[in-house]
Amino acid sequence: MTDRTEAPVARTVLQQCVRAKLQVRPAEEGAEARYVQIERGMVIYICFFKGATEEILPKMVSALLNIRLCESDSGKLVSVLELPGNLLIVPQATLGGKVKGRAMQYHANIGKEDGLRLYNGFTDLCEKEMKSAVATLEVQHGTYGNRQVLQLDTNGPYTHLMEF
Amino acid sequence: MTDRTEAPVARTVLQQCVRAKLQVRPAEEGAEARYVQIERGMVIYICFFKGATEEILPKMVSALLNIRLCESDSGKLVSVLELPGNLLIVPQATLGGKVKGRAMQYHANIGKEDGLRLYNGFTDLCEKEMKSAVATLEVQHGTYGNRQVLQLDTNGPYTHLMEF
Repeated sequence: MTDRTEAPVARTVLQQCVRAKLQVRPAEEGAEARYVQIERGMVIYICFFKGATEEILPKMVSALLNIRLCESDSGKLVSVLELPGNLLIVPQATLGGKVKGRAMQYHANIGKEDGLRLYNGFTDLCEKEMKSAVATLEVQHGTYGNRQVLQLDTNGPYTHLMEF
Repeated sequence: MTDRTEAPVARTVLQQCVRAKLQVRPAEEGAEARYVQIERGMVIYICFFKGATEEILPKMVSALLNIRLCESDSGKLVSVLELPGNLLIVPQATLGGKVKGRAMQYHANIGKEDGLRLYNGFTDLCEKEMKSAVATLEVQHGTYGNRQVLQLDTNGPYTHLMEF
């Protein structure tokens, strides 16, 4: 999917984890920070580009949940659905950056409002697909637009790039 | 750098960290696993493609150490050299994967021998540049070909993709 000549509408980076913990609300006066956490599974960092629409979401979710990148106990590569593993989705607009001199520019990124709508659609669809496969699986996700304070514990991140 | 039409010869993913710990030798009978660790700084996951040569290394190292992706205490974006921050380099051949059906294929990846040579050249050059800028900076790196058992603690990974 990375060999297409037209520009991608979404970019994801995938990492395997044994545990991952993400802040979903920073500490405020009178309220401690809130976190979500998953055990073994996959972390999806995601960014949408200009031109992305809801149409792409089913294809993305199907590809991401079914690609065989997770190492089973027997050492075989299986999908996160087959593992079965949990999912942590991290909004990551920085993934859309393009180098300009010594700085990164984000001109190709989708606008915030559309980005939030697509992000919500993506997380909802992931949750629906994961839960309908294995009801006990956890799908957690970060808060769009927030700083993604993250702790990741991996037995090998096996970092992959997938563009759509 | 990601808008070139010719295929890249190297792919990197960058994450900011407040601490990162990486296994560099697995446990063996009679010997515990060995780890390296950095405090605040940047993690570089790196993969070389077929066609990469030593010629690309100075340009890569210069770009990676000077791109302004690190948040200073005042909130300004500065380079890892300017921060000054530490560096953890993680060999990550999986970054070269291309989707084929439900599997990843790595046909564009450089061969292991050439990959090791380039990886060593890359880590050496990073170390030289970092140490000559700020002698106390740590440059740590994973063992090429090993499983990269990693713990990452971030205050926002600000995940970026840079291709060369």
